[in-house]
Amino acid sequence: MKTTFDFPAWIQGQLADVEQALQAWVPGSAPGGLGEAMRYAVLDGGKRLRPLLVLAAAEAINGHREAALRSACGVELIHAYSLVHDDMPCMDNDVLRRGKPTVHVKFGEALALLAGDALQALAFEVIAPDPHESGISGDVQARLCRILARAAGHGGMAGGQAIDLASVGGSLSETQLRQMHRLKTGALLQASVAMGAACGSAGSEPASALDRYGAALGLAFQVVDDILDVTADSATLGKTAGKDAAHDKPTYVSLLGLDPSRAYAQALLDEALGALAVSGLANTRALEALARMVVERNN
Amino acid sequence: MKTTFDFPAWIQGQLADVEQALQAWVPGSAPGGLGEAMRYAVLDGGKRLRPLLVLAAAEAINGHREAALRSACGVELIHAYSLVHDDMPCMDNDVLRRGKPTVHVKFGEALALLAGDALQALAFEVIAPDPHESGISGDVQARLCRILARAAGHGGMAGGQAIDLASVGGSLSETQLRQMHRLKTGALLQASVAMGAACGSAGSEPASALDRYGAALGLAFQVVDDILDVTADSATLGKTAGKDAAHDKPTYVSLLGLDPSRAYAQALLDEALGALAVSGLANTRALEALARMVVERNN
Repeated sequence: MKTTFDFPAWIQGQLADVEQALQAWVPGSAPGGLGEAMRYAVLDGGKRLRPLLVLAAAEAINGHREAALRSACGVELIHAYSLVHDDMPCMDNDVLRRGKPTVHVKFGEALALLAGDALQALAFEVIAPDPHESGISGDVQARLCRILARAAGHGGMAGGQAIDLASVGGSLSETQLRQMHRLKTGALLQASVAMGAACGSAGSEPASALDRYGAALGLAFQVVDDILDVTADSATLGKTAGKDAAHDKPTYVSLLGLDPSRAYAQALLDEALGALAVSGLANTRALEALARMVVERNN
Repeated sequence: MKTTFDFPAWIQGQLADVEQALQAWVPGSAPGGLGEAMRYAVLDGGKRLRPLLVLAAAEAINGHREAALRSACGVELIHAYSLVHDDMPCMDNDVLRRGKPTVHVKFGEALALLAGDALQALAFEVIAPDPHESGISGDVQARLCRILARAAGHGGMAGGQAIDLASVGGSLSETQLRQMHRLKTGALLQASVAMGAACGSAGSEPASALDRYGAALGLAFQVVDDILDVTADSATLGKTAGKDAAHDKPTYVSLLGLDPSRAYAQALLDEALGALAVSGLANTRALEALARMVVERNN
């Protein structure tokens, strides 16, 4: 008997665990106001898409729950640090994030820089707990560290940001634009799925299907982001709309046009769902629903 | 037969391996100028004290050589990223480092921020290689990740920097000053020793002796740094001398006076050497020589 999948209830349950874990692991007591800035950057905001992807992938392969929860928080901490640094005056110089003043506006630039740095370190601390207390083997921890570090660094998110930076005021080919997004946003989204898969022992076929799912979803996310930057308003987005155009940044919309971008997002969704269909995994309902959510969101 | 220990030759041999490894692992090809900025920050400069501590500790416990070399590079990458971010205008606003323009002066603030971020991620990437190719077990990798993340983050280096930031223009008690330095500089030096020890299977007694050695050496390093900020000139230091006084930062010298600071450094050296003497480890000659070097250096 196939039961109906209650996606909103699934999300609510997962988010409750993620928020509780972040509350516990992001320190309030770090000195010099650092803990306060870190908590401000991470708690009370964000759609937690990356954690949800980790947990959905771990569920699909029946992975270790605490490893998945730690991975979910680890990847969210990397995401949160990148937003703090991205918003700084020397980068995007943004003053509004999730409807609140950005970290450097609230705490000053120096503490924002440090808070971002400390959040990145915390991401790796969270995924490498005492193996005896956590029951997470060294092998799994090392795998998680490897996936997360590669996705965050020069061959992933930071590399994509560097391309973005170098492209301002210039122009990118579609190939270069795709490469930038594959690294800047896609790498961490794909890593979320891979980390979830690394919390169990998926065979090589399911693992490779999840990898294709993650790659398509990561790209779709950015295409939709570019569409929303043009079509949504700041209040709905919870951040400044139209800023890509204002900064003369190349986007899928500026390159392909609005309707072709929408068609492209739809094709990527089909690709992601197709990968799940041939994965051989039984329980991919949350992954399917997340892919639809990414493409059909309005903020 | 006890042979004489040729410390300069030991250093030369270790440094050759460290430089070669850093050359190999710090990417030149990362996009958008990021690789160039990362290499500029890491290569061709620095005394490599932390890598030497890792390698000396690993030698003392007869640890896995590639694990030690990866740990040595990992901890140096964390150190290098912290210098890049420390030098930025919103922090110390320093233009000279190791006799060269700082990274943000050379590459701009945005790329300096990204290069620092990418160097931190690379540190964790380097210590978590494929276990089959590297021969480093997941257990060892996870231990290294745990030690390094804790030392770099809010409970270590970043936490110490936040105290430092909060103290500018104010005053600290000796207890608070010691706490700041224990975190800001001491944590990573102590972690270097602990990571070296984690590359093998030291018993609990040697491990605890090495930990006491690392703690004393970490503190001694900072006391001597404060002394040199007053007594050395910029050319010898390879960075701007007298900047702590100029920024009205509390130091050991401003708090204790010059001669008591020197006596304190000497007492910490004795403490470090004493810990080695009771460690039960046979081959601690490099660790001994490094402790003397830290206290007797003039830059």
